[in-house]
Amino acid sequence: MTGSALIVIDMINRYEHPDAELLLPSARQAVPRIQHLLERARRGGTPVIYVNDNFGQWRSHHGEILETALDGPHADLVKPLLPDEDSLFVLKARHSIFFETPLSYLLGQLDVDHLIMCGQATEQCVLYSALDAHIRHLDVTVVRDAVAHLHRDLAEAALRMMEVNMSACIRSADAEDLPV
Amino acid sequence: MTGSALIVIDMINRYEHPDAELLLPSARQAVPRIQHLLERARRGGTPVIYVNDNFGQWRSHHGEILETALDGPHADLVKPLLPDEDSLFVLKARHSIFFETPLSYLLGQLDVDHLIMCGQATEQCVLYSALDAHIRHLDVTVVRDAVAHLHRDLAEAALRMMEVNMSACIRSADAEDLPV
Amino acid sequence: MTGSALIVIDMINRYEHPDAELLLPSARQAVPRIQHLLERARRGGTPVIYVNDNFGQWRSHHGEILETALDGPHADLVKPLLPDEDSLFVLKARHSIFFETPLSYLLGQLDVDHLIMCGQATEQCVLYSALDAHIRHLDVTVVRDAVAHLHRDLAEAALRMMEVNMSACIRSADAEDLPV
Amino acid sequence: MTGSALIVIDMINRYEHPDAELLLPSARQAVPRIQHLLERARRGGTPVIYVNDNFGQWRSHHGEILETALDGPHADLVKPLLPDEDSLFVLKARHSIFFETPLSYLLGQLDVDHLIMCGQATEQCVLYSALDAHIRHLDVTVVRDAVAHLHRDLAEAALRMMEVNMSACIRSADAEDLPV
Repeated sequence: MTGSALIVIDMINRYEHPDAELLLPSARQAVPRIQHLLERARRGGTPVIYVNDNFGQWRSHHGEILETALDGPHADLVKPLLPDEDSLFVLKARHSIFFETPLSYLLGQLDVDHLIMCGQATEQCVLYSALDAHIRHLDVTVVRDAVAHLHRDLAEAALRMMEVNMSACIRSADAEDLPV
Repeated sequence: MTGSALIVIDMINRYEHPDAELLLPSARQAVPRIQHLLERARRGGTPVIYVNDNFGQWRSHHGEILETALDGPHADLVKPLLPDEDSLFVLKARHSIFFETPLSYLLGQLDVDHLIMCGQATEQCVLYSALDAHIRHLDVTVVRDAVAHLHRDLAEAALRMMEVNMSACIRSADAEDLPV
Repeated sequence: MTGSALIVIDMINRYEHPDAELLLPSARQAVPRIQHLLERARRGGTPVIYVNDNFGQWRSHHGEILETALDGPHADLVKPLLPDEDSLFVLKARHSIFFETPLSYLLGQLDVDHLIMCGQATEQCVLYSALDAHIRHLDVTVVRDAVAHLHRDLAEAALRMMEVNMSACIRSADAEDLPV
Repeated sequence: MTGSALIVIDMINRYEHPDAELLLPSARQAVPRIQHLLERARRGGTPVIYVNDNFGQWRSHHGEILETALDGPHADLVKPLLPDEDSLFVLKARHSIFFETPLSYLLGQLDVDHLIMCGQATEQCVLYSALDAHIRHLDVTVVRDAVAHLHRDLAEAALRMMEVNMSACIRSADAEDLPV
């Protein structure tokens, strides 16, 4: 029997990249919903997988990334979303959660064929990741109020593209049928 | 200007998998040569990249993997080869160092186009990694006395395949022209 | 010295898939501009690469695909765009022009690092292909009046995503600086 | 229900590459066995997929490749193995039958999870293809007297590597349990 996993994209972040100012207001709204999703998933035993850009050196050491993010000016957006003992953690290069990462392999080991995506940014990594999941015949749900964007109009277009062209379900964080 | 990197394959290991007994005698011989290569690379400023199978949970935490290996019955084969502060670390799923890993991306960032490979097993991961490097138009040197095998005859055939069919250079750990 | 290639996406088509009615009006407008690009490219010696979904059997026989398309109800949209003797032809499975195709290899052989994209659909295969080109460090120009869409608003969002997030140039088919 | 396919690797060939002289004696022995496998597969309704290096221009036109091969000095090795109306045909860049080809996609469509491999060369493309099939969780049978090599000793090592390290079955062309 296959199941679902909660995928948290790029939320371990210092918010200091060039576009961060555009992202921050939306991230502030998404964080409590992601926190809520994390609580639901942990209570229900749904696997939680953080997939995150690396920053700093490539030492595949998520502790280092956490510290760097908690040391940054927006630690308040990171603290509520920290991985716990059971969280899985995958480093990505950039862009999609699948591009040059072991995520496919890990999903196979966990027997997961449905990804519940939250994180940022809606019209970039979330969109690219939904496409790569669709190509790999995985089901995708995007939690529309638990994803953060830089540009509202592009984010809305991205959500429609995921729904119409990639067969994704678009749900809110408090939807009762969310399998998390 | 592009350069070389020393690639250490699967040496952070508990040697408890089914075939470990076959591998151990050869690993014992390879370890001091890998240690020597590590010293040369660190002295000379050549980047060192550990690429290693994960064991245990996927938490992209090389500290965990190190502890697990140092806790095992063959810690003496792991201790001389520990990563230092500057070592890079990439987790692989299994098989090739490139298969579903960010190694390509990391090599691009480091401007590395020549891989000096050591580690194990010659006729498995080392062979598959040399093939994947060759397909990606990277140059490969295999350090023949710093790789460990399960079966001597297959290892010798693998070294010839790498030399004849994948244009790899085969050198010994004390070769003066080794760019490490 | 590296150069450009004109990429013609999915224009060898019977226009009989479920969404074809949405695509046809836009395709009718794009066809003469693509024809114009083909003429410019052929006069100027720019390589032309058709990348097209397969339909029917997998026999890697573009003749078969051409015949099937010319046999369809919309042959008038295919005839002006036929490959000539020098055209290259790559079959794709679906989605991106790079996903499980030899296009990367072919571009390497041609020493091409800049793709001038036209074809369909803007908010689907063109968008996904621009992303995959960007990930592979290739430059992309999208010819905005030589691409066809199903939904105008999604197509406009897709063009902005390509420009803002994937560093693509957006040009019209008669732009003088188009390197075709 | 899933099934098997017969995979014919690189047998549409002019045998004019630098190493062809080494390959020819072994190819001459393999051709009648491959012909026998083709007959069994066609009689039994097993899908037959030719996967072949391209030579000449990239026009994804297997007709061109057939003509070029039939025009060469070793047409007698190609004629007995020609594709028929039902044969599928996939062009590869070089090396593995999976590397930048749509073969995975095609196997998914055919619901095939077991590859029966014949062709050449045992210690190169056949070995690399068996590895890539194993990584993709496909079952592999290699028909040991229907594959051709350049070097006998490397071919024998390659067959053992496939059997021991990649879980391949090694069978002869007249084995009764060959699911072809």
